[in-house]
Amino acid sequence: MAGDQANKVQAVGVDTLAAPGGHYSHACVGAGLVFISGQLPITPNGVRLVDASFEVQTLQVLANVEAALLASGSNIQQLLQLRVYVDDIANWPLFNTLYAAWAGAARPARAVVPTGPLHFGLKLEVEAIALALPAP
Amino acid sequence: MAGDQANKVQAVGVDTLAAPGGHYSHACVGAGLVFISGQLPITPNGVRLVDASFEVQTLQVLANVEAALLASGSNIQQLLQLRVYVDDIANWPLFNTLYAAWAGAARPARAVVPTGPLHFGLKLEVEAIALALPAP
Amino acid sequence: MAGDQANKVQAVGVDTLAAPGGHYSHACVGAGLVFISGQLPITPNGVRLVDASFEVQTLQVLANVEAALLASGSNIQQLLQLRVYVDDIANWPLFNTLYAAWAGAARPARAVVPTGPLHFGLKLEVEAIALALPAP
Repeated sequence: MAGDQANKVQAVGVDTLAAPGGHYSHACVGAGLVFISGQLPITPNGVRLVDASFEVQTLQVLANVEAALLASGSNIQQLLQLRVYVDDIANWPLFNTLYAAWAGAARPARAVVPTGPLHFGLKLEVEAIALALPAP
Repeated sequence: MAGDQANKVQAVGVDTLAAPGGHYSHACVGAGLVFISGQLPITPNGVRLVDASFEVQTLQVLANVEAALLASGSNIQQLLQLRVYVDDIANWPLFNTLYAAWAGAARPARAVVPTGPLHFGLKLEVEAIALALPAP
Repeated sequence: MAGDQANKVQAVGVDTLAAPGGHYSHACVGAGLVFISGQLPITPNGVRLVDASFEVQTLQVLANVEAALLASGSNIQQLLQLRVYVDDIANWPLFNTLYAAWAGAARPARAVVPTGPLHFGLKLEVEAIALALPAP
């Protein structure tokens, strides 16, 4: 972040994602960090993938996370921490496989947290913290 | 934070909140960030609002979060991320409505996480990260 | 962190812990912060303490957190925030007692989150954020 932005909170809206479903921003930037809101398997057109497989839901969520990172001036390589909420911990291995292909060389800190039933009956939600890229 | 405090961890006790119920501080400051401990619907006098409605519990939790922010040298406008644990995701819309009125123009990153039964049988818990205000 | 490292993400592998069971690092450092991946009660030799008591599981998890902090150039005193996932909130008091002895004078922000059944049937998971120590 440039010097005079270091102490400012910047809310980020992502044109390529469905509008937030509540009172939050897709992402928020401050102190050199990007905070990504919990991303659900919802398409850019606003379709909730409730009936889709765990694989399809995961790929949508990860695409949403990447879109939010890019719109925030960050990227997958800058991820510091990622948290995955799943309504069924039995999906841990499949998530890990899909995630490994998405993350590539990046290996941020991670936690997979089993929850109760998620919003709209969806199967997973992902939030993340990344390092903001320095201002050019 | 002033320069010589940048690499120090500062635990914050909040006079206007009930004392912590365990081995933690209400908030902790470091690296220009304020970390707010999970706030439950407990009044400044220590009364657990177990039998209160979700609305009353939410308003107490949000009041507690604001008290912790102010005591840490931050405020609602400096919030970067907020996480809401609810024992029943059906309360998402009501939480969102109450939260929107509380947050006002602030729209930090957010996640609402459905959990198992919360401590003492309470209905929600909120934790947050905010940007510390620069030292005057 | 030294100046030219301030905008870099550094993944940390911990020799004294079992290798990560998936696509993540034990810890990740950036922006002056250390992010510790969710630690489960797994010994350095990779034994999952599934049948052990909550006390034994907790002591292993906390030992793992400390090992990850030290390998990341931080320590317990530098903790800013700690999050505890438990599959049974009834273990809150016992966790708090064991944790208080481990944390000593440190009182970072904290949340204890009741989850569904955890990975491998283990009883708790802990993740944390700490302040990185300044480069010598």
